[in-house]
Amino acid sequence: MSVGTVHGVGLGPGAQDLMSVRADRLVRSARHVAYFRKAGRSGQARAIVEGMLHPDAVEIPMEYPVTTEIPLSDPRYNAVLSGFYTACADHLLALAQSGADVVVLCEGDPFFYGSFMHLYTRLKAAVPVAVVPAITGMSGAWTATGQPITWGDDVLTVLMATLPEDVLATRIAATDALVVMKIGRNLSKLKRALHAAGRLEEAWIVEYAQMPQQRVQRLSEAGAVTPYFSIVLIHGQGRRP
Amino acid sequence: MSVGTVHGVGLGPGAQDLMSVRADRLVRSARHVAYFRKAGRSGQARAIVEGMLHPDAVEIPMEYPVTTEIPLSDPRYNAVLSGFYTACADHLLALAQSGADVVVLCEGDPFFYGSFMHLYTRLKAAVPVAVVPAITGMSGAWTATGQPITWGDDVLTVLMATLPEDVLATRIAATDALVVMKIGRNLSKLKRALHAAGRLEEAWIVEYAQMPQQRVQRLSEAGAVTPYFSIVLIHGQGRRP
Repeated sequence: MSVGTVHGVGLGPGAQDLMSVRADRLVRSARHVAYFRKAGRSGQARAIVEGMLHPDAVEIPMEYPVTTEIPLSDPRYNAVLSGFYTACADHLLALAQSGADVVVLCEGDPFFYGSFMHLYTRLKAAVPVAVVPAITGMSGAWTATGQPITWGDDVLTVLMATLPEDVLATRIAATDALVVMKIGRNLSKLKRALHAAGRLEEAWIVEYAQMPQQRVQRLSEAGAVTPYFSIVLIHGQGRRP
Repeated sequence: MSVGTVHGVGLGPGAQDLMSVRADRLVRSARHVAYFRKAGRSGQARAIVEGMLHPDAVEIPMEYPVTTEIPLSDPRYNAVLSGFYTACADHLLALAQSGADVVVLCEGDPFFYGSFMHLYTRLKAAVPVAVVPAITGMSGAWTATGQPITWGDDVLTVLMATLPEDVLATRIAATDALVVMKIGRNLSKLKRALHAAGRLEEAWIVEYAQMPQQRVQRLSEAGAVTPYFSIVLIHGQGRRP
């Protein structure tokens, strides 16, 4: 029996018809479908493919043992997650070694701040692993605002809102165009950093980009609570003939 | 007769099956298909959809009057391009007002350093304009390297190689992960900037990402000539459980 392939399949920002043709085919034909989710939740990646899976598909939910309960700075955070990713990788490895192809559903683009890379690094020396790039959540977000994100030779900076406030403020002041991800409970800190950089009024927040519940607002007019997967952005203003 | 819609359709990095399902449907069904190209060339966007167009599709090539003959810094550069984009927009506007839907083929993602935005700003107040986001060329490039571009809270900076050498060097020194686009004849300058930032050895160059002629090399081992659409990148090395 030949060894199977683990496919890390980017699903894009959330609309089914924004999946690539390659991803669409892989998802619809897969017999083993794995995805990350928070314990007790259905999971965003799984929700995107609702109605697309083959009737005989075996689902493999991989439930995070911890997300926000332990601070990022605590060494236990990395240790717990590392063990979790290794256990997940071992499970997929055994499947692939038994000859099964496995599709791992990935929100956005797998190699862009994604969780799949933690499986990828553990699997790639042992079994074939294929990665399907996808439309990033940030592309979905800036398209939703109806304005180009970058012009001419604008500099684009992508930041995680988990960074310290002073780092955020310095980086925000120094860029032309801006994308900030992993917002959620970091929203107040991010707003203070944008204000310190003198750029709060330029910022937009996009919730659920390219999904039915999509919402686009000026950040200065938005509420104090937003989902983790919201994206804040500032459009570049570069050269435009 | 109702007014038509102008669709700015992102095609992604180059492989047909990396187009979104939405883009695939629009391209295959379109009766009016417009695209930019250099005079005397077939055009990269048109090449991506080879074999996909409807037999009755009317093609509307839009040929750049100038690309590298006039320096970017010359005021004539903007004036010539501005007139060109306005003439193209007027042509598409007349088509849409006659009731036709028009698909404009866009390499990569239309709102990310794309030419379509120059039509978009001229058309959006006059006729319905719809934008289909796509996989960016940079996603295609970092996926081609087989390594994730960003981990944890890495900062990603996207630069155009058309920027001055000292600006490039300063920005390159200050980021975790890096993407540089619009390389072509700026390659030597970019290499000097990477060297000045102490990061030349970390850099990869990807030519024709996700196309049959794809080539991935360490930049320090690559030749002195590369296509305009090549992408240089440095992978982030952030937190990884």
